[in-house]
Amino acid sequence: MLIITGTFRVPVDAIERARPAMTAMLQASRAEEGCLLFAYSQDVLDPGLFYVNERWTDADVLRAHSQATHMAAWRGVWAELGIGERNLRIYETDEGRAL
Amino acid sequence: MLIITGTFRVPVDAIERARPAMTAMLQASRAEEGCLLFAYSQDVLDPGLFYVNERWTDADVLRAHSQATHMAAWRGVWAELGIGERNLRIYETDEGRAL
Repeated sequence: MLIITGTFRVPVDAIERARPAMTAMLQASRAEEGCLLFAYSQDVLDPGLFYVNERWTDADVLRAHSQATHMAAWRGVWAELGIGERNLRIYETDEGRAL
Repeated sequence: MLIITGTFRVPVDAIERARPAMTAMLQASRAEEGCLLFAYSQDVLDPGLFYVNERWTDADVLRAHSQATHMAAWRGVWAELGIGERNLRIYETDEGRAL
């Protein structure tokens, strides 16, 4: 299994404008084959900081995801909205254990 | 390295009341030895769903964290605030790679 975690930043005054494009991409990504989890969430102490939490079955489905039309559309609005400071890491793991 | 990810739920009408206790616990946890990351964040599509993103150097520091006074204080407000549906997993990983 592949876990992706990390953050990106949205200027606070652009968050509401970013929401429609973000929502469309999230919903399309969740519907992809091999997507076990795909969520964006807003830090409780730093509203412009967004956390990414993804889980994918394997590298092939992740490659298809990175080339998906909905990801291109999402990347296409980053510059206009000032979205940046993207800092993501990928980890190969087992299923973990409940805590 | 240990990664903890997962979710818990806060009733939407209790989020603002939960914020002071949550903030105090987050700040104290971030100051702990061996804590590499400790963040709570609010799902962009589901405001009552909170994501947990933690990274710890090893099991010993995580054990100390679980026994810390500030964690007991945080757990102590869960029932009153209706916080529940806790669903966390722990993964042993390497440092991953930048995506």
